[in-house]
Amino acid sequence: MSKHLTKRSDNYSKWYNELVVKAGLAENSAVRGCMVIKPYGYAIWEKMQQQLDIMFKETGHENAYFPLLVPKHLFEAEEKNAEGFAKECAVVTHYRLKSDDNDKTKLVVDPEAKLEEELVVRPTSEAIIWNTYKNWIQSYRDLPIKINQWANVMRWEMRTRLFLRTAEFLWQEGHTAHETKEEAVEEAILMNNVYAQFAEEYMAMPVIKGKKSESERFAGAEETFCIEALMQDGKALQAGTSHFLGQNFAKAFEVKYANKEGKLDYVWATSWGVSTRLMGALIMSHSDDNGLVLPPKLAPFQVVIVPIYRNQEQFNLVSDKAKTIQKDLQANGITVKFDDRDTHKPGWKFAEYEMKGVPLRIAIGPKDIEKGTVELARRDTLTKSFVSADDVSGTVIQTLEDIQKNLYTKAHNFTTNHTKFIDSYADFKAYIENEGGFAECFWDGSAETEELIKKETKATIRCIISEDDLEGKKCMYSNNPAKAKVLYAKAY
Amino acid sequence: MSKHLTKRSDNYSKWYNELVVKAGLAENSAVRGCMVIKPYGYAIWEKMQQQLDIMFKETGHENAYFPLLVPKHLFEAEEKNAEGFAKECAVVTHYRLKSDDNDKTKLVVDPEAKLEEELVVRPTSEAIIWNTYKNWIQSYRDLPIKINQWANVMRWEMRTRLFLRTAEFLWQEGHTAHETKEEAVEEAILMNNVYAQFAEEYMAMPVIKGKKSESERFAGAEETFCIEALMQDGKALQAGTSHFLGQNFAKAFEVKYANKEGKLDYVWATSWGVSTRLMGALIMSHSDDNGLVLPPKLAPFQVVIVPIYRNQEQFNLVSDKAKTIQKDLQANGITVKFDDRDTHKPGWKFAEYEMKGVPLRIAIGPKDIEKGTVELARRDTLTKSFVSADDVSGTVIQTLEDIQKNLYTKAHNFTTNHTKFIDSYADFKAYIENEGGFAECFWDGSAETEELIKKETKATIRCIISEDDLEGKKCMYSNNPAKAKVLYAKAY
Repeated sequence: MSKHLTKRSDNYSKWYNELVVKAGLAENSAVRGCMVIKPYGYAIWEKMQQQLDIMFKETGHENAYFPLLVPKHLFEAEEKNAEGFAKECAVVTHYRLKSDDNDKTKLVVDPEAKLEEELVVRPTSEAIIWNTYKNWIQSYRDLPIKINQWANVMRWEMRTRLFLRTAEFLWQEGHTAHETKEEAVEEAILMNNVYAQFAEEYMAMPVIKGKKSESERFAGAEETFCIEALMQDGKALQAGTSHFLGQNFAKAFEVKYANKEGKLDYVWATSWGVSTRLMGALIMSHSDDNGLVLPPKLAPFQVVIVPIYRNQEQFNLVSDKAKTIQKDLQANGITVKFDDRDTHKPGWKFAEYEMKGVPLRIAIGPKDIEKGTVELARRDTLTKSFVSADDVSGTVIQTLEDIQKNLYTKAHNFTTNHTKFIDSYADFKAYIENEGGFAECFWDGSAETEELIKKETKATIRCIISEDDLEGKKCMYSNNPAKAKVLYAKAY
Repeated sequence: MSKHLTKRSDNYSKWYNELVVKAGLAENSAVRGCMVIKPYGYAIWEKMQQQLDIMFKETGHENAYFPLLVPKHLFEAEEKNAEGFAKECAVVTHYRLKSDDNDKTKLVVDPEAKLEEELVVRPTSEAIIWNTYKNWIQSYRDLPIKINQWANVMRWEMRTRLFLRTAEFLWQEGHTAHETKEEAVEEAILMNNVYAQFAEEYMAMPVIKGKKSESERFAGAEETFCIEALMQDGKALQAGTSHFLGQNFAKAFEVKYANKEGKLDYVWATSWGVSTRLMGALIMSHSDDNGLVLPPKLAPFQVVIVPIYRNQEQFNLVSDKAKTIQKDLQANGITVKFDDRDTHKPGWKFAEYEMKGVPLRIAIGPKDIEKGTVELARRDTLTKSFVSADDVSGTVIQTLEDIQKNLYTKAHNFTTNHTKFIDSYADFKAYIENEGGFAECFWDGSAETEELIKKETKATIRCIISEDDLEGKKCMYSNNPAKAKVLYAKAY
């Protein structure tokens, strides 16, 4: 199976597309740009959801659910937001089909069931949520509101790729309302930090935290904080964003609160989200030419046990041992699959679980029973070792921790090795074109410079890293005084 | 707060509507027929989801995700299914908005972004899923497929009510594919049993299991199994359905598998689902004129601690004790909220948690500290008792179990007392009109009888209870030989 996977060095993009399908993560559907998330892929997403949900609740958020469809007049209320998403909105215009007069087996849209006002399939939910918050907020006693929603959203993207850019995707969107600007900014930064912590501790994916330049901000935001990760092809991937929305939505929907002195003021807002795009980031961060590589903390099962046998007697022997080990591992909180199917050979299974990125594989054969050992194979390093069958759990626990750390370290080293400070535009162009990676550069803060660099190199400002210590620093491109140190890269 | 709730005996329907809003469960949104599920309501739904998800996985199912939108030609492939849902489909016809030439602040649908083929917002996912399974199934080795999806769906209902009937709702839909008819029927029955077990053990809601008459079947099913529960107003509520779909979808989408002998045959299917409608069933099963009553197993928090104090010194004393008790309860796996807000008086809090149906309330005041007691108030019986502060956990654990059992027993007695065997149509009409409840009757099996009874009494066949021991039995309505014993009731 693995031999059919294109090599990263030959065609990185093809490698990714094949991997997603061959590892059983997702596939394209009959609906343009929409994917089917297959059970194995969905199980990883569920692990992500569970952990993020815990972190959201620990930081004081509650879940709720708001409508899928947004009436057009609400959608257009916050002008910048509307402008930003109008071009990619799926629009519901009718609420009924009827059978076709010319062919009774076919259905047509019933022209008599035209909606008076069109409904937009949410590309994001600020509009419908702020229209709801309006009724929930009267005084400071009603604040803060800290709500998260797990939902599907739709953006009619022209060029789509599984997980990375799909017309429909799954995500969570937090929407909070606060008394003061400070509190809202703090919330936006806090949630960006939560995303960074999740990426690093669970996905084993190092990220750079920063904020977006104006042109890259979320439509309707005053400030967008983000985490950016570097993929193995040297391109950046925006993995999560957290927006300080100022009073823009409060003003668009007339959401005011009475403070302790009874004075009315507009409410301050944030929103923040991560999506199934994280799946793409996870896949590209660690996987290799043999298939998927998963960090143990997000693997649907961390260990797979494959029995080796030639006859029923051997199978019984090996199977008994395998089940004992499985139970012991499970008692230690480790997720284990025992693949005792007789429809597939061990070699086929090895290739299958390598493709699926199972962190540890245990093989047990008659010889192992004799010697009191099992064979342990690590997916990350592709190394094998024999360990005593008496203390498999201890070794497995330790090895899973090692794998989690090793994946992070590897990705971290990669990111560090592919991040360069560059102060000459000639070097920059060569670097972006030939090497790829993050370039740390000084920027004059002008949209014009940003736009010209994008045009000439396809690299964009991924985030502003710092606005301090700029004394005497010059923009790499214009040579004008620097307003910020930024991170450039080509991006997904 | 509670005094504003309409009494059930005055207007049951109004009581329900007010309760849903006042307990903070859900509210209507700006989108016709679509609700906002508020944090407290969503927390209950999450508890339901978590338990159901465990039960689905224990019975061998995996989760996955399929597209929201269904191309019209796929939707119409299974004729009966298409016919059943065509009249209530939201249809996406365009994929872009543009600014209005007459008023740049407004958006209009861009006529140039008309889709070649309309997309239906899924009212259920058989079509898109079977079109996908087609590519997954070649041989018996690929079977069974046992997948569940947690998703939102949309049915353009004309008359909507929070949770009970909404245009958009949240649900889970299981879709399985099998080699044989027997296996598929077994699966459909198994999942109906899982629903019944969930309803009884977790929702404390007794249900009647049975199967639907032909006219009440799911569009496209050969057989629909269901669970029916009786609400306090004597009306039935269909709480879950599980369908044996025969080979209908396999034929519509040409899904064949090669059996062990290499012979091709169509695949057998089931689908099964429960939705946020269960929230309505839960609310109506146990709540009273003071508000919501929740079974401990599904309560977002099972215990609330309210401190009673007149000054800071008393607050500190009471608060210390409360926190000790909270920790102890949490260590015993009990969810506890300590409401130490100084913005609201104890009396207000008591009314609030009564309305929200928190199973147990603990009040602690200075006198309790002196006496070494706390006050325990049960939501289900509205009784209070003083218990030793030294063994709150023991008492609470026992009392929560008692409440869970008591709610089930109460609901079970209610259902039993409102279920009557009736063999005279005159008695039946009087019973349905004056008393309300389940009527067990013999039925001649004809759609005509069913239809006439529905027309004359508004009662429908909720389910077929039995098709055995019919020797000499006559249909209550037609006096023709009975084909089944059925359960009639007016229904939600």
